Amino acid sequence: MENKNEVTIHSHERLDELHRNGYWIIQDPGRFCFGMDAVLLSGFAKVKPGERALDLGTGTGIIPILLEAKTKGEHFTGLEIQPESADMAARSVAYNHLEEKITIVTGDIKEASARFGAGSFEVITTNPPYMIGQHGIQNDANAKTIARHEVLCDLDDILRESAKMLKQGGRFYMVHRPFRLAEIFSKMVAYHIEPKRMRLVYPFVDKEPNMVLIEGLRGGKSRLTVEKPLIVYKEPGVYMPEIYDIYGY
Amino acid sequence: MENKNEVTIHSHERLDELHRNGYWIIQDPGRFCFGMDAVLLSGFAKVKPGERALDLGTGTGIIPILLEAKTKGEHFTGLEIQPESADMAARSVAYNHLEEKITIVTGDIKEASARFGAGSFEVITTNPPYMIGQHGIQNDANAKTIARHEVLCDLDDILRESAKMLKQGGRFYMVHRPFRLAEIFSKMVAYHIEPKRMRLVYPFVDKEPNMVLIEGLRGGKSRLTVEKPLIVYKEPGVYMPEIYDIYGY
Repeated sequence: MENKNEVTIHSHERLDELHRNGYWIIQDPGRFCFGMDAVLLSGFAKVKPGERALDLGTGTGIIPILLEAKTKGEHFTGLEIQPESADMAARSVAYNHLEEKITIVTGDIKEASARFGAGSFEVITTNPPYMIGQHGIQNDANAKTIARHEVLCDLDDILRESAKMLKQGGRFYMVHRPFRLAEIFSKMVAYHIEPKRMRLVYPFVDKEPNMVLIEGLRGGKSRLTVEKPLIVYKEPGVYMPEIYDIYGY
Repeated sequence: MENKNEVTIHSHERLDELHRNGYWIIQDPGRFCFGMDAVLLSGFAKVKPGERALDLGTGTGIIPILLEAKTKGEHFTGLEIQPESADMAARSVAYNHLEEKITIVTGDIKEASARFGAGSFEVITTNPPYMIGQHGIQNDANAKTIARHEVLCDLDDILRESAKMLKQGGRFYMVHRPFRLAEIFSKMVAYHIEPKRMRLVYPFVDKEPNMVLIEGLRGGKSRLTVEKPLIVYKEPGVYMPEIYDIYGY
């Protein structure tokens, strides 16, 4: 942990190693900790030299931080509506000396295009809430609920705003749950973010997939490449080699 | 081959065993022979007791014949636009003594709902042409071209007619190519045949899928089950056990 900026880490928070460029991340187990979905998205998304990327609903900033480590992208922005999460993300950015590469913005996805402007990004990434609306949740939405359920934004908000903010030919990367795939594809087509590449994540080779990784192309033509399966476990507790590669250890 | 009806088999045709109920099928290698896609669709589709099923673009009748063998469906209809294919299908039906269970109709998918009427089937199956329009083909459309390319009907025709002919709550089963999945889902949603179940067929566990099996529900709600991968080969030349099961040997 040498060569790190001095930042405040609160007593309910912890500092986790990312196994990438010596970066660390501040998380609060009482709120939300990043999962395999964010890591797999950072391995699936491509950000090329000179490109600017926006992460919608960035939480603790895990995706911009991993993408800064893994790609040659020019600049990364993380948008997060919850001030406590955005504050953690900003402190992680500072701790890793990434202030010139990553900007954390506190704000609402529903107003993102008004804030950032049309055609302002080559790449948009998102690990959005998976669950539909108020389904099975209480009224008192806490941090975990907001991260998991479409309480404050839904798929339409994300696609509408992304379509506005992406340059023509810009790329959209999302991790989501397979049970919503028909809705996802139908809405991506409607918002002219054409699905171009998909990979299903199967926990085991003989089990149903529990995640899907999708790349869309703003203004692209209809033709999807479905990639080989991404299988997580070789046996219980032992990852497949590709998963260790993506995690970086 | 005992207990078979006497039918004419032309010199350019051949008679192939189906490994189901002792059924055989007449095929013409110069026209089109059924592939693994039709067999996998017959294993994926469900036809329940009392239900009537229609196969759109039935070719030599492979799907109705296999479904009659595998399910307890009440009655099966195969619609085929090419008279020579429909004639082979009708002779196969007669040869296997299936005239009371399977009807082969020569006609156009684009006019199917006018012929059969609205809400006339509980189940529709189809192994349609996979390739878009005139892409890469000559003007003189032969039997293989018509079976493989959307020359005489396209996805919109199939979904529009299916939506009309299916009862509310009726099921639609299709095998297609994964590269068209975004278009397929988008159009199924638009025609109110909601994608409910999908299975990707991977030739090998570490290869891209080359087929997709889809079940839609007429008037269903949005929620897709993506099933475990269907992997064809254990090693080159050796099927996985599930494939042998579906083929019946």
